[in-house]
Amino acid sequence: MAHTQRVREILSWYASENPGVKSNLARFLNTGYLAGTGKLVILPVDQGWEHGPHRSFAKNPAGYDPRYHYALAVESGCNGYAAPLGAVEAAVGEFNGEIPIILKMNHNNSLYESPNPDQAITASIADALRLGCAAIGFTIYPGSAHSQGMYEEIRALSAEAKSVGLPTVLWSYPRGEQLSKRGETAVDVTAYAAHIAAQLGAHIIKVKPPTAHFEQDAARKVYVENGRSVETLRERIADVVQSAFDGRRIVIFSGGAAKGTDAVLEEVKEIAAGGGFGSIMGRNAFQRPKAEAIKLLRAVMDVYKAAAEA
Amino acid sequence: MAHTQRVREILSWYASENPGVKSNLARFLNTGYLAGTGKLVILPVDQGWEHGPHRSFAKNPAGYDPRYHYALAVESGCNGYAAPLGAVEAAVGEFNGEIPIILKMNHNNSLYESPNPDQAITASIADALRLGCAAIGFTIYPGSAHSQGMYEEIRALSAEAKSVGLPTVLWSYPRGEQLSKRGETAVDVTAYAAHIAAQLGAHIIKVKPPTAHFEQDAARKVYVENGRSVETLRERIADVVQSAFDGRRIVIFSGGAAKGTDAVLEEVKEIAAGGGFGSIMGRNAFQRPKAEAIKLLRAVMDVYKAAAEA
Amino acid sequence: MAHTQRVREILSWYASENPGVKSNLARFLNTGYLAGTGKLVILPVDQGWEHGPHRSFAKNPAGYDPRYHYALAVESGCNGYAAPLGAVEAAVGEFNGEIPIILKMNHNNSLYESPNPDQAITASIADALRLGCAAIGFTIYPGSAHSQGMYEEIRALSAEAKSVGLPTVLWSYPRGEQLSKRGETAVDVTAYAAHIAAQLGAHIIKVKPPTAHFEQDAARKVYVENGRSVETLRERIADVVQSAFDGRRIVIFSGGAAKGTDAVLEEVKEIAAGGGFGSIMGRNAFQRPKAEAIKLLRAVMDVYKAAAEA
Amino acid sequence: MAHTQRVREILSWYASENPGVKSNLARFLNTGYLAGTGKLVILPVDQGWEHGPHRSFAKNPAGYDPRYHYALAVESGCNGYAAPLGAVEAAVGEFNGEIPIILKMNHNNSLYESPNPDQAITASIADALRLGCAAIGFTIYPGSAHSQGMYEEIRALSAEAKSVGLPTVLWSYPRGEQLSKRGETAVDVTAYAAHIAAQLGAHIIKVKPPTAHFEQDAARKVYVENGRSVETLRERIADVVQSAFDGRRIVIFSGGAAKGTDAVLEEVKEIAAGGGFGSIMGRNAFQRPKAEAIKLLRAVMDVYKAAAEA
Amino acid sequence: MAHTQRVREILSWYASENPGVKSNLARFLNTGYLAGTGKLVILPVDQGWEHGPHRSFAKNPAGYDPRYHYALAVESGCNGYAAPLGAVEAAVGEFNGEIPIILKMNHNNSLYESPNPDQAITASIADALRLGCAAIGFTIYPGSAHSQGMYEEIRALSAEAKSVGLPTVLWSYPRGEQLSKRGETAVDVTAYAAHIAAQLGAHIIKVKPPTAHFEQDAARKVYVENGRSVETLRERIADVVQSAFDGRRIVIFSGGAAKGTDAVLEEVKEIAAGGGFGSIMGRNAFQRPKAEAIKLLRAVMDVYKAAAEA
Repeated sequence: MAHTQRVREILSWYASENPGVKSNLARFLNTGYLAGTGKLVILPVDQGWEHGPHRSFAKNPAGYDPRYHYALAVESGCNGYAAPLGAVEAAVGEFNGEIPIILKMNHNNSLYESPNPDQAITASIADALRLGCAAIGFTIYPGSAHSQGMYEEIRALSAEAKSVGLPTVLWSYPRGEQLSKRGETAVDVTAYAAHIAAQLGAHIIKVKPPTAHFEQDAARKVYVENGRSVETLRERIADVVQSAFDGRRIVIFSGGAAKGTDAVLEEVKEIAAGGGFGSIMGRNAFQRPKAEAIKLLRAVMDVYKAAAEA
Repeated sequence: MAHTQRVREILSWYASENPGVKSNLARFLNTGYLAGTGKLVILPVDQGWEHGPHRSFAKNPAGYDPRYHYALAVESGCNGYAAPLGAVEAAVGEFNGEIPIILKMNHNNSLYESPNPDQAITASIADALRLGCAAIGFTIYPGSAHSQGMYEEIRALSAEAKSVGLPTVLWSYPRGEQLSKRGETAVDVTAYAAHIAAQLGAHIIKVKPPTAHFEQDAARKVYVENGRSVETLRERIADVVQSAFDGRRIVIFSGGAAKGTDAVLEEVKEIAAGGGFGSIMGRNAFQRPKAEAIKLLRAVMDVYKAAAEA
Repeated sequence: MAHTQRVREILSWYASENPGVKSNLARFLNTGYLAGTGKLVILPVDQGWEHGPHRSFAKNPAGYDPRYHYALAVESGCNGYAAPLGAVEAAVGEFNGEIPIILKMNHNNSLYESPNPDQAITASIADALRLGCAAIGFTIYPGSAHSQGMYEEIRALSAEAKSVGLPTVLWSYPRGEQLSKRGETAVDVTAYAAHIAAQLGAHIIKVKPPTAHFEQDAARKVYVENGRSVETLRERIADVVQSAFDGRRIVIFSGGAAKGTDAVLEEVKEIAAGGGFGSIMGRNAFQRPKAEAIKLLRAVMDVYKAAAEA
Repeated sequence: MAHTQRVREILSWYASENPGVKSNLARFLNTGYLAGTGKLVILPVDQGWEHGPHRSFAKNPAGYDPRYHYALAVESGCNGYAAPLGAVEAAVGEFNGEIPIILKMNHNNSLYESPNPDQAITASIADALRLGCAAIGFTIYPGSAHSQGMYEEIRALSAEAKSVGLPTVLWSYPRGEQLSKRGETAVDVTAYAAHIAAQLGAHIIKVKPPTAHFEQDAARKVYVENGRSVETLRERIADVVQSAFDGRRIVIFSGGAAKGTDAVLEEVKEIAAGGGFGSIMGRNAFQRPKAEAIKLLRAVMDVYKAAAEA
Repeated sequence: MAHTQRVREILSWYASENPGVKSNLARFLNTGYLAGTGKLVILPVDQGWEHGPHRSFAKNPAGYDPRYHYALAVESGCNGYAAPLGAVEAAVGEFNGEIPIILKMNHNNSLYESPNPDQAITASIADALRLGCAAIGFTIYPGSAHSQGMYEEIRALSAEAKSVGLPTVLWSYPRGEQLSKRGETAVDVTAYAAHIAAQLGAHIIKVKPPTAHFEQDAARKVYVENGRSVETLRERIADVVQSAFDGRRIVIFSGGAAKGTDAVLEEVKEIAAGGGFGSIMGRNAFQRPKAEAIKLLRAVMDVYKAAAEA
């Protein structure tokens, strides 16, 4: 399929990369209901790792089977599906290439918690290739005492991934003993986290929708001095997108804990209005019955489609 | 031997794997008294490493000789035999291929104990191949401060094993400073441990039979909200099996400390009724005199056979 | 996109391969006008290497620019595009993933000719990955005194390609001092060439449409004894397809030297009627003006589409 | 399954090998109708490579599909199945471990013939492992000007195979410009070929049933001087078996071109009477309809069973 | 220095390459008297290797010292300087980066001549990096029986060079037993040679100015049929430039044996008129006294400058 003007424009931001990386990026941009719009809705299912199986799947038990999520991503028209090694292996041998996959490379779990969290690397670039994945995914915890080790890990993995044509999707989640709980989603911290991800060479950056809280006084001062308003979510989204190379990196936003349909759509409208490139939405999708989940995902996609056409 | 329908079905869950991995999985499923049923009884003898030789073998001194266990596994009709490097080396040169072997790759011992235990890697994939083993075995301690290092170790070993056609059997034993002693076998924690093993790409998962205790409040809440009853052992077994990709991974249960025949069979009946795939039974087997051990193992196998035929 | 029943069936023939290989095969099957039908029309442009630039492109000078062919393949709705390293590099950095690419790995040229021809390997698996290609292509010359060296070369390249999820397309062109010129396309020799390609592990096999000539007496005798009629082209196509694992490998047919539209379509109808999986058509496409080429390619695709729906 | 006395005895001849090699040898000895007898009947299907697809499969067209042969080997109760890379890949992903496989590593074809034939290496040890094979197979042509290169190739492959626990099956077929056509199966040459294979470290040696012809005068003289009678086939079989380390290597005999049932059984009785370890029978099996083939193979196995029990 | 429009356009043809390769290409395009014009004049001094020192340097003995050529290239305003390992080592330690260097990687000499010539590889990519070179140079002999080996050598070297950001300059000189002496510079053969270089992934292609001779009948026929006139040198230059991806690869022309100033300039005017990108001029430069050489080189550059401005 010939690229749309918008896809071509987005790819031009990654001119340093080899055609393999750009072609795989294009696969996400050209898949599903939002194909060609430059917007992305991705289904991520790694909550079993993070919170345990029942907290993730008891509500909609179909989700215990990893094939359910793969099929949900395909049927709802998502641009991609992100999952850990085991879940990808459990589904992909049956489906083989129905949707681009992000192989999530590192994980944490809640059986051991630390004020300075870290993640274990549980997959390799060779795994991504043999499983036919189109990108790797990786979480960093800016603010953790272990964050620098994580930056070095992704540097190595990302370099290897690029050399074989795979782009990198970075989950940038601030956490650590010097950050308050509220600070983890503060607008200044979220903008900083997006910037760090961009500087690490990420092609797609995933952050949480930022709140109006400021964590760092030095940052707050700059916002005030320069008259940067972050009162509305759309302003804060724009603030974060600008922080990732002036909007020349794809920044998408996570949906967070499960909530009502109206709340989800309200948030997505703000993300779209602020120039966000899309959503990566897990629990709000797979914890609903399938028909409802597809309906919600389509509604979310329609918001982005309208924004792309505006 | 042509595969039974059930063996074919189980192998279909591992469609991402190469034929080598699936063929070796099939060797376990097609060996011994339970051949073809899709059920497994495996004899593991690594207690000498864990608890010292006399605590393990004084009761039935024949067990000081590793050949005893190999022969016991063969004569009783087990599907496989699991042991550390030294014990495998001590027996396999004499017997050469009478039963599929799981080479247990890492071990802990009780001369040094830590609230956050770890294991030493004491064998390699090359060892498994030169000794003619059909799988590797590995222990993880979800909950230990060292758990992430262990996940990274098994990721590397398992990838190498897969590339040469060897499946991975994961012993998933929660332990660590943030877990209570009761929590190590709590139903929520055991389900989580089985899920982590599945996400790490394990082909066979070994956990302990779970108790009705809950360790994590957030998990307990989900059980209650979703009406998940875990009063009976069979319910808890079903809960754990579901947590491993909705029953599409082979989950087997350890026998734990030595106990009376009735107690063993009672527990096994519940495991079978809950959809467990089998037992991995060490001390309850090798600490009995050989004739008794064979009698007990056959009784256990008969329970699984009956369940498979039901 | 969820696979059609037919695509799923074709992929099932490659059950030994990892999901990467199958996913990339699926990319060809799910691209273009014939997406989902199980039929393939591929544009190959390596004639510059084989015959020199002017013999290839003077007729339609737009073809001197490799971007022309890439765009022609996309616009005409081909399933894929095959080209040498230089031509891929010259186009793919601009287009990045608009169509699956077969990187042709070896080439011969007509500045040095031998009764036992060979080819030079001019690209690597690393090239295929960095350029975002979906398969490798390779020519063998069964019958050449150098054929065994070529078999060993593709064995090594194909093994490396499979390990990183790339399928192999084999051009199987009999040539050599013990073959007559007519023998190169004899039905017995073509069937043999297709079989050798299948035994080498090829996923897609390209041969020339066979003539009714027999080259080997021992083979002719078998045709006669077993009542195998090869009078019509469709019978000969069926004969060749059967030789490639009873039709369980994708066999496509080259278009050969440029000819009239009616002659092309007549041949394609016979290929389709004989169960051929498609055409790989170079000179007949790119030596026509673009509009005519697209019209012809679409007409060819319509023949295959009708056959798929029959 | 505990080894029989005879299997244990045979394995004792290979005491230098690691348990992996011996365990895989034991898999062949413990599989099928002849399990435990120390006798072997193996189905080899590489004739498509050697003679072309139609000369091999036209008589019984079910054989165009490689799955047919795999299933035939299983259903008839063979000890093993030998095939080239492509044919193994085409079947094993569906069947996964129903019978031990010999991956045939090198091949010749009849599109180019030479007075000093050679073969191309078309598979690797890594292929054997990922496909779950239990041995590698390799052809040498003692007498060919290329024979020494072939010896060096198998030396390297066999060493690698042993290091990962795979035994080597050698097809030892004398051919070359200094051998007469009759000489290729002369008793002195066949005995010499078996000895060379043994000296190369083969675990199983495949030769053709020898004729009473002598090719080398120096050899004939020794037979006469020492009163070695080779009038009957059973004497010649004994002569060849003795040449392979005094019967301490497994020597099996090929069935050759298709012939009548009585002729096949007559020959097999002589092989068994001479102490041959079994047959490797291709065309006489797969060119018959399946029911007939199974009947013949069982009759052959009954001959060996009777010999083993005698 | 910001790139000119023309430099930017030329670099856009190499969009598949990493920024390192493009930056080094840009260094040549932005150096010397022709900086920014898109035209190149390069001084190559490898004639000592090819013809021996005295045939090369006796006329102007200053040239025995490799520093002379380096300085000549700098002072005359060349875009680059090409030389073998020894000559580069002898000059570069003194000058260090005054001009971009092409490290010529392979060489032939006239102490051994063959109808099918080959070259020895006498430098490595590591040499190019440690010496601060901006490109590698390599000769291929299309038409030689050794040509396929040379293609495989440059494939490997070029891939390594690209990975460290170095572009490749290919000297494409047809020679071999099936080519007549006149054929080596025939227009059809030269066009073919330029095309082969482009397909091998060359960034800059060096060929000899073609004559109006045709070597291959099949090619001559195409010229005639398509009305391609090659009477004038400028037509032939255009013909060759078109053969290298329709003018989207930099093609430069060698000056050949020493001749008079008028003859040189006459030829250069035709090259420029035909769309050639420049000259690589050795003996006509360094065999003249320095002042004369600089005068001639400047005159040549003025021709190209005028063409660029036209």
